[in-house]
Amino acid sequence: MADREGCVAMLVVKIGGVEGLGIEPLCADVAHLIRNGQQVVLVHGGSHQTNVISEKLGKPPRFVTSVSGHVSRYTDRETLEMFAMVTAGQINKLLVERLQRLGVNAVGLSGPDGRLLVGQRKSTLKIMENGKRKVLHGEWSGVIERVNVPLLRLLLDQGYTPVVAPLAISHGGEMINVDGDRAAAAVAAALRAEALVLLSNVPGLLRDFPDESTLIHRIGRGEVKAYLPYAQGRMKKKLLGASEALEGGVGRVILGDGRIEAPLSQALAGRGTVLQ
Amino acid sequence: MADREGCVAMLVVKIGGVEGLGIEPLCADVAHLIRNGQQVVLVHGGSHQTNVISEKLGKPPRFVTSVSGHVSRYTDRETLEMFAMVTAGQINKLLVERLQRLGVNAVGLSGPDGRLLVGQRKSTLKIMENGKRKVLHGEWSGVIERVNVPLLRLLLDQGYTPVVAPLAISHGGEMINVDGDRAAAAVAAALRAEALVLLSNVPGLLRDFPDESTLIHRIGRGEVKAYLPYAQGRMKKKLLGASEALEGGVGRVILGDGRIEAPLSQALAGRGTVLQ
Repeated sequence: MADREGCVAMLVVKIGGVEGLGIEPLCADVAHLIRNGQQVVLVHGGSHQTNVISEKLGKPPRFVTSVSGHVSRYTDRETLEMFAMVTAGQINKLLVERLQRLGVNAVGLSGPDGRLLVGQRKSTLKIMENGKRKVLHGEWSGVIERVNVPLLRLLLDQGYTPVVAPLAISHGGEMINVDGDRAAAAVAAALRAEALVLLSNVPGLLRDFPDESTLIHRIGRGEVKAYLPYAQGRMKKKLLGASEALEGGVGRVILGDGRIEAPLSQALAGRGTVLQ
Repeated sequence: MADREGCVAMLVVKIGGVEGLGIEPLCADVAHLIRNGQQVVLVHGGSHQTNVISEKLGKPPRFVTSVSGHVSRYTDRETLEMFAMVTAGQINKLLVERLQRLGVNAVGLSGPDGRLLVGQRKSTLKIMENGKRKVLHGEWSGVIERVNVPLLRLLLDQGYTPVVAPLAISHGGEMINVDGDRAAAAVAAALRAEALVLLSNVPGLLRDFPDESTLIHRIGRGEVKAYLPYAQGRMKKKLLGASEALEGGVGRVILGDGRIEAPLSQALAGRGTVLQ
């Protein structure tokens, strides 16, 4: 329930990995909002950092092009385990430490923990390679279908702030890699959050990427699909997540700038692309 | 409260990293005990695996000898972050996944999460190098002083099984590396566990290491210190942890064999070195 201008009782925030985003201002802003009585769930990414570490470990990421032309990383079992190591062990714990230092009682979790995020594993990918259709087996990614709301509420009600790494568990108990933006959207919808803020290293959705003066300020609830053609790269998933969150009952979604001071407060005050 | 022979209501278990220990039989045994109504907290290590990964990442571990002759790893900030990545991200998540597949609703945590384990950071080490005393700064390890029992109870009471990585948080909010055996001892004492089982790749404390026929079967509560001279390497920390747990009110401690079938059930039935 919105209690005053720009302030919501339940807020879900997605931040990227660590590249290009000011973790310090973000964490300080989270601490500020929590001191003012808001409940926050933080979801983070980690693809870039996983690529860096897996490259160093002699297992460079393999990118494939789906039959629909979408480029994604092939997540074999070894890649999945590196993704878990980096997101749940490195990025998650550094965020938890940073928040704890600011007085926020953060608890790091990932989807397999307490079956927080349960999804459907997609074990094969249909790809195009050298102009030919191929089926790639042994994929360990998927899409979230259920969020363990009682676990989140249990922690939030005791004053803890969940920090969630983008992994899920399949119905059969297999760990899978999931998209962080869509994970945040699923969590926001499950909690019926008043707002979902998706931060990135651009000011929001741009009509003419990368010209920041072409920021789209507002998108109506029913118009999201019409704006998909403007979305480049990762922004496509953000728009998809935003659309899923709105359909799931989230009050508003803001595509905000993660590089600025007080990125959350500014997003909540309307800076960025507001979908409502 | 012991409800029947070999069965306890609250059990804390420490397992090493993954080397030489059967994770599958251990997880199956945890699942079996939980189905029989026991509550279990699992604490794990990860030093060996951290050494492997940090070596691969071009940052081999640096071992130092303290002025008292004790060899330990120098944990600088970079090493700490690798330790967090491997223990909380890799080992912890693989254990959670394995347990989930067996129907155990495991939740992976580390000490900084919800200030589960709070300790005192030891930021300098007094070492001997080339026959000279030296002070080494920038150490990120410490000793646990407080366990967040309400957080563990909150999860246990809802049917979750905590799986804990050996990290803690300092009073000032810094993440620190802690010894896994002593972390398990601290958790067992804080929960007033009926039993603490410390598993390793030997059958227990051996009078004449590595001759397994010289297993010491029983050590009285007041005699632990007299047995310290028999403890080699890592076993010293286990005896120290055992002693701390008994002093903290834990019913009994068993130094059990982690390489066998049903390692926990067998330890609870008296196989290994029982300290009581």
